[in-house]
Amino acid sequence: MSSQHPGSTAPLNGFAARHIGPSASAAEQMLSTLGYDSLQQLVDSAVPAGILQDQQLDLPEPLSEAQALDALRDYASRNTVKDQMIGQGFYGTHTPQVILRNILENPAWYTAYTPYQPEISQGRLEALLNFQTMVADLTGLDIANASLLDESSAVAEAILLMRRANRKKAEAPVVVDTDIFPQTRAVVQGRADALGIEVIFHDVVGQGLPEGEISGLVLQQPGNSGTVADHSHLIAEAKERGALVTVAADLLALTLVTPPGEQGADIAVGNSQRFGIPLFFGGPHAAFMAVRSGIQRQLPGRLVGVSKDAEERPAYRLSLQTREQHIRREKATSNICTAQALLAVAASMYGVYHGPEGLTRIAETVHAQARGLAQALREAGQQLVTDSFFDTVQVRLGSEASAEAVLFSAESNGVNLRRVDETTVGISVDETTTPAQLAAVLEAFGAADSAHQQAETAEHDRAFPASLARTSEFMTHPIFHEIRSETQMMRYLRKLADRDLALDRTMIPLGSCTMKLNAATEMEAISWPEFAGIHPYAPAHQTEGWRAMIADLESKLTVVTGYAEVSIQPNAGSQGEYAGLLAIRRYHLDNGDADRDVCLIPASAHGTNASSAVLAGLQVAVVATAEDGTIDLEDLDAKIAQHPDRIAAIMLTYPSTHGVYEADVREVCGKVHQAGGQVYIDGANLNALVGLAQPGEFGGDVSHLNLHKTFCIPHGGGGPGVGPVAVAEHLRPFLPTTEVGAGWATDADGQVRGGAPVTATPFGSAGVLPISWAYIAMMGAEGLTRATEYALLSANYIAARLADHFPTLYTGESGLIAHECILDLRELTKVSGITAEDVCKRLIDYGFHAPTLAFPVNGTLMVEPTESEDLGEIERFIEAMVSIRAAIQEVIDGAVTQEDSPLRWAPHPAAVVGSDQWGRSYGREQAAFPVKGLRQDKYFPPVSRIDGAHGDRNLVCSCPPPEAFEL
Amino acid sequence: MSSQHPGSTAPLNGFAARHIGPSASAAEQMLSTLGYDSLQQLVDSAVPAGILQDQQLDLPEPLSEAQALDALRDYASRNTVKDQMIGQGFYGTHTPQVILRNILENPAWYTAYTPYQPEISQGRLEALLNFQTMVADLTGLDIANASLLDESSAVAEAILLMRRANRKKAEAPVVVDTDIFPQTRAVVQGRADALGIEVIFHDVVGQGLPEGEISGLVLQQPGNSGTVADHSHLIAEAKERGALVTVAADLLALTLVTPPGEQGADIAVGNSQRFGIPLFFGGPHAAFMAVRSGIQRQLPGRLVGVSKDAEERPAYRLSLQTREQHIRREKATSNICTAQALLAVAASMYGVYHGPEGLTRIAETVHAQARGLAQALREAGQQLVTDSFFDTVQVRLGSEASAEAVLFSAESNGVNLRRVDETTVGISVDETTTPAQLAAVLEAFGAADSAHQQAETAEHDRAFPASLARTSEFMTHPIFHEIRSETQMMRYLRKLADRDLALDRTMIPLGSCTMKLNAATEMEAISWPEFAGIHPYAPAHQTEGWRAMIADLESKLTVVTGYAEVSIQPNAGSQGEYAGLLAIRRYHLDNGDADRDVCLIPASAHGTNASSAVLAGLQVAVVATAEDGTIDLEDLDAKIAQHPDRIAAIMLTYPSTHGVYEADVREVCGKVHQAGGQVYIDGANLNALVGLAQPGEFGGDVSHLNLHKTFCIPHGGGGPGVGPVAVAEHLRPFLPTTEVGAGWATDADGQVRGGAPVTATPFGSAGVLPISWAYIAMMGAEGLTRATEYALLSANYIAARLADHFPTLYTGESGLIAHECILDLRELTKVSGITAEDVCKRLIDYGFHAPTLAFPVNGTLMVEPTESEDLGEIERFIEAMVSIRAAIQEVIDGAVTQEDSPLRWAPHPAAVVGSDQWGRSYGREQAAFPVKGLRQDKYFPPVSRIDGAHGDRNLVCSCPPPEAFEL
Repeated sequence: MSSQHPGSTAPLNGFAARHIGPSASAAEQMLSTLGYDSLQQLVDSAVPAGILQDQQLDLPEPLSEAQALDALRDYASRNTVKDQMIGQGFYGTHTPQVILRNILENPAWYTAYTPYQPEISQGRLEALLNFQTMVADLTGLDIANASLLDESSAVAEAILLMRRANRKKAEAPVVVDTDIFPQTRAVVQGRADALGIEVIFHDVVGQGLPEGEISGLVLQQPGNSGTVADHSHLIAEAKERGALVTVAADLLALTLVTPPGEQGADIAVGNSQRFGIPLFFGGPHAAFMAVRSGIQRQLPGRLVGVSKDAEERPAYRLSLQTREQHIRREKATSNICTAQALLAVAASMYGVYHGPEGLTRIAETVHAQARGLAQALREAGQQLVTDSFFDTVQVRLGSEASAEAVLFSAESNGVNLRRVDETTVGISVDETTTPAQLAAVLEAFGAADSAHQQAETAEHDRAFPASLARTSEFMTHPIFHEIRSETQMMRYLRKLADRDLALDRTMIPLGSCTMKLNAATEMEAISWPEFAGIHPYAPAHQTEGWRAMIADLESKLTVVTGYAEVSIQPNAGSQGEYAGLLAIRRYHLDNGDADRDVCLIPASAHGTNASSAVLAGLQVAVVATAEDGTIDLEDLDAKIAQHPDRIAAIMLTYPSTHGVYEADVREVCGKVHQAGGQVYIDGANLNALVGLAQPGEFGGDVSHLNLHKTFCIPHGGGGPGVGPVAVAEHLRPFLPTTEVGAGWATDADGQVRGGAPVTATPFGSAGVLPISWAYIAMMGAEGLTRATEYALLSANYIAARLADHFPTLYTGESGLIAHECILDLRELTKVSGITAEDVCKRLIDYGFHAPTLAFPVNGTLMVEPTESEDLGEIERFIEAMVSIRAAIQEVIDGAVTQEDSPLRWAPHPAAVVGSDQWGRSYGREQAAFPVKGLRQDKYFPPVSRIDGAHGDRNLVCSCPPPEAFEL
Repeated sequence: MSSQHPGSTAPLNGFAARHIGPSASAAEQMLSTLGYDSLQQLVDSAVPAGILQDQQLDLPEPLSEAQALDALRDYASRNTVKDQMIGQGFYGTHTPQVILRNILENPAWYTAYTPYQPEISQGRLEALLNFQTMVADLTGLDIANASLLDESSAVAEAILLMRRANRKKAEAPVVVDTDIFPQTRAVVQGRADALGIEVIFHDVVGQGLPEGEISGLVLQQPGNSGTVADHSHLIAEAKERGALVTVAADLLALTLVTPPGEQGADIAVGNSQRFGIPLFFGGPHAAFMAVRSGIQRQLPGRLVGVSKDAEERPAYRLSLQTREQHIRREKATSNICTAQALLAVAASMYGVYHGPEGLTRIAETVHAQARGLAQALREAGQQLVTDSFFDTVQVRLGSEASAEAVLFSAESNGVNLRRVDETTVGISVDETTTPAQLAAVLEAFGAADSAHQQAETAEHDRAFPASLARTSEFMTHPIFHEIRSETQMMRYLRKLADRDLALDRTMIPLGSCTMKLNAATEMEAISWPEFAGIHPYAPAHQTEGWRAMIADLESKLTVVTGYAEVSIQPNAGSQGEYAGLLAIRRYHLDNGDADRDVCLIPASAHGTNASSAVLAGLQVAVVATAEDGTIDLEDLDAKIAQHPDRIAAIMLTYPSTHGVYEADVREVCGKVHQAGGQVYIDGANLNALVGLAQPGEFGGDVSHLNLHKTFCIPHGGGGPGVGPVAVAEHLRPFLPTTEVGAGWATDADGQVRGGAPVTATPFGSAGVLPISWAYIAMMGAEGLTRATEYALLSANYIAARLADHFPTLYTGESGLIAHECILDLRELTKVSGITAEDVCKRLIDYGFHAPTLAFPVNGTLMVEPTESEDLGEIERFIEAMVSIRAAIQEVIDGAVTQEDSPLRWAPHPAAVVGSDQWGRSYGREQAAFPVKGLRQDKYFPPVSRIDGAHGDRNLVCSCPPPEAFEL
């Protein structure tokens, strides 16, 4: 470790110097503006002494970028890549390289934020609309959302949806067919237990519906066993009995098999992984949900819709926004926020590139190979579990054979099969399956290699009932027919990316979102085959490297947070919250405190907090916020008193969502502990703490982190995310089990975690974990701490520089803020009519992504620069804000009316600026080039301001016809 | 092989369907427009029956994209990556991942064309100007060019320059110091032999200048031995004696050592590889040349300069264009055309990212490590070759030791050292060198590991004379001081890329340049460490995979061309031409035909042809072109008769540069053969032949190919390129030797090639060969043939659709063209004043890159769509051209004057379209959105039309101050 102690602005070395934006001399200048002599002094003033940690984080020396890649290569080399025929929801697939390179490896796509600002998000919104259209078409339903986290949690979400949409029967049980993936069963069971929902697992396909009231039915097509079954009668009966019906389905199978919608289902869910997304050791992959018309307003997750802009031209936007801050806290039902946007985009492009005929051809090849395999196995005397299948064949071995032996033999031939049970082996065919692979499989069963011939002989036969053969068209929209050459795809991806603003072109100063650098070195390893090509249920001895890396990451996160253990399983912040609260709930139950079911949530909390509490079976009690933005201690006392012996937990965000380090956080924690409650500290703002203070030390029992905020996983336009849950010693046994899906998984140190699984796979979105691992490894203790300090410095600098223009709403006792500032526009709006939203839209004309709008306080903008923005970019932002403030002043002074102000007409697309008509009271240059430096390198939004309400009133959530875009 | 025979428009399978743009149904439609029933019919009509090949190419079944990557992984696994301390001009370096990802792996950069159209090339021109500024600063000279091919050929170019600039002494010998890299010596000797220039290799540094007249002196700093010597007295003496002086120098060393310019040198050359460019088994890397003021107009290669646009704002462009078509054929002196633009861009960004202080820090670390190593070796009793060095230490072993043994021992410790001779070992330190590596080296010498300590004890000492310590500043321009964080670099690279048009946004219909798809799968392998991390002189047993892949590629290229053998050593088309002509020249000499020194070149030839002939020691005789664009047979006879027994060769391009398959090519070849000459067929237009006809079969004795045209290596904004030379059996012995630089290299089949080497390394720009290998492997015989047919189809379709608007200048006997068409604008220019250049500039407003301008005929545009453009893009181009034609008509009709036409004002940047003043006679919409489809996704050039002449009159070739760009 160098002798430079944290708090110094001495020049940084190595990767930290590349990650952190301001140079040492810039930092001096910023400190001087703030009136501080050193970073140390600033930190000491901003962070309450009571929580400041006194030692540097105990982490290894930082690695250089080259060393980090070497270390990752070493981990990678300890994984074994086999041909993955385990199936069970995860299949080999060819990621088209043009998609890999131009989406998954392209910062223009992966550094984008969730498309809440639709004018600068038309590219990714179009891609997500393609996804929705493709999913709706394939499932035969009316409306699909823009991705969910994983198939298992999607089934759980569907169960909740069925209950929401079926209020009359809300208390009746939900029936789930037993031919469902075991991971789904485990996740659903955990969710149901937490909420007290009765779920009956029953062999519905074999034995029909059980007697009694039911509110919902869940089936799977093809089933866990590979069976393709005709569900139409069951669905009809369930609906007659007043239930809603969900079918978990395989998208590729649906190109050949009658889709759920046509069988009468209300809802379909599933995973789009096999549409070109690597296995990634379990994730991230885009799950989906589609529903019939009538219940679309109940859809969880994000929904892209078509609206119109100020020129009355069609424009995309998120419809029916269910984002955290829009949720009515106490009535929240789903806590989905981050989803899997980047993966949905990639999967949609796979659909665009192959088109319906290409997907069908892939499905036919897969099916023919599976049929050939089945036939060869039958001829070798093997007994198949079912004769009606799509891609998966299960073999019930004779009494003399064991699944282990077959699996071992197949593995030595280079193929992984599925161990269903001691005497049953599963084999799933996918688009990567080769004749040689089939021969290797057959050899493992001692069968002759005739699969290939079999497959060829009956190319258009089907191994499922003719009545189930799909007859309807799908993906008929032109977008699925136009792009077949790589050149076209490359240009389409560039065109869409160019419509959007991401971190590769501008600072994204979104408060609470921590849009920091996603370094190329961090991103490098994720597509290496030794990481990306591993099945989530591959045997443990093949995944040594993965598990060692994950264990190391979990361990480093405990060092950072001061907790005893971390689980990286939750694949989003919302899932982390849920897992953390579940641990608390289980802890109380374990202690016999079943009555502890009240969760205190401050008024300033993220909306997700409340919804997660509800999902964990807790009741929400809101604690008021004092005038200075801190928790109202009196109201806290009152709320505690109001629920004697019922306090389960308090959920705090620290620093608070008001952007302030509250001095009395220890006191708040103490009060709740004293009342027998647990303290949940939301890690959303951890970027203001790393290296300075540890939630596990200053009062937290549990926290979730957001690796996609503090630890550099890119936002991907709305996911992937990873939301690890960190707990104190007494909660360790309640972390989510890694024994989900396959039976082999235990923790690195051998201790089995006993909580319900929150995702379908042991390590959630494992695929993106090398990013955070590399970040921590390259920053080291000093670099991480310095990053936090620079995040503080830059936020305070912006607040100070803008103080005369836009007051900062809340500050701490020292007059300082933490890593973000809330600019209060309410007074200005009152006197000018210009709103915070107008400012957001006008910032686009300056080439900026807007700050967070109206959270946590309406009429405000929350600005978080992060440590990665250099002073030049910060000054450019300040210049834009000051210039906008001057334009507001003109309205205030009556020089221009509010209606005539460029602020109200912003943003200004090229087509408007360059139109022959110009009826505005201000000039075109003021519209497009309000400050210097825009003339040569100007971003024009593709649309003008979008009418959100119109889109919600007229819900259109699949691709509009091309004619709609004509002039 | 599928049953679909070539010439059919049946849907394609696999990669070919992704590479080829038009769908089967589009092809039918295009054929129908042309009045043909089938592709076969079109091909039969277009290609003379006399040359059509009757069998499909004998190539293996095509691989899928995944299979190709697997095969490349297999080759890669057969290479061994060691720590490369061989040096000798090639050094380990850390490529910053942000540069790797955002330049070398980003199609926006690598698919760009040479920046001849400066308005859509401002991004890469700025990057190249940064390169020039950096090189000029580091070498202490006034003006640097925008890259050359490799250091050895750069020295050869410098020798030619010294002779050009020193006409009085043109016959006097050039003296080259013997402490120069052996590869440079070999390349220079070959060039000198060809041209009959006397070069004296002499120990100038040790013994002083030889007696007698000299025209030039070449020194190296540090020398081949690692020696850093004070050259100032030698340089002064040489200049006194009327010679010019060149110093080959190491850029990194020049941060610490007095640069050549300050020592009095006129010219500096070298390689910028160690500025972040992978070793790539020898290339591509950007070499450079810098000169003192006064001889800059003699600089070979491209030179970026600053001029101004129509708004009088600074704008970049290529100065003093020495491109092939601008060269006066018979007087050509350098044949450099394709250089290493992409690598120069990457190296410049390495300089931008590290800045002068970063480069100096790297150099100091390297130097300290080398000093520590030297000290430890001395202490172990080893004798060093020199005590004055920068990064390289050579050890003269005692009589009992052998270099082989030390090398072997080092290799088993994971390190490659240099075998200088039987008893001398070289060790070069670089920025990747670790203490462990130094310990491994010392162990190989049986020395104790004290290097690390030694290095630390005297951090600022120097192992060369204090008088040689650099005292001058360098890289003082702000661009080398502003960008230190990765976020800044990522945005700078995006900003520059956004200024430019490359294949990722538009068709680049450049005739003769074959701008086809550069597929992501083809590009994937080049940065794999097992390919990229191999030193060009690594021992043969470590490079098995490389050599097997190269041998396979060479062999497949012989199949395609119908020749006996191919050498991929030439790292540009110009080098391939030179190597081919050299083989011809050597063949004649070998036959005792020393008088055969006349090279016939048709008037329509590429300018490069003539210059290559001159470089190969041949005299050029121009053969006239008949009115229909074909070679004038009568003039051919006359020219042959004019030079009895002196005809060395004819250089043909086939199809001709007029875009036509000449029916009498066999007759032409026959006449030349009869006259005792050899036939050189320039492969520039091979994209019209592959699978249809073979130059080696229809009369050629030698051809060069352009892998960066026909075989998918991207143009990279002006390089890298690969120009393999293919020869008939009798010329095999004269192919360039692969024994250059290291003594181990032989051909795959064991036969040693005996020609002079044309580049510094055995396999030239090996690093990009996986691209062409993958292309051929994935296309297979049928795919390659189909590509050629579609290239013909699309070119003929454009010619036909534009016939009523712009006549095509030349067609074949059937009225068809080959793969490109020359649109004749001369008549239109005469009546309207609107020039072909105006059309090029106006196409930018439609979002297009211009076709080739004024080649091969002034006043024309040559259009080559290639097979990769889909019909939609082709129609978009036709629409633009028709719309432009209508605008010309308005001028002809007098509706607008030429001066008022948007054609004359084109292109229109955003700042112009959006300006408050608009004094034009046409509307803004007509300026910016002349056709539909531009309104939402519009490319605006960053500058308006650039005044080229101004830039040549006022030559500024380094970065202008930022203030120059202010409004």
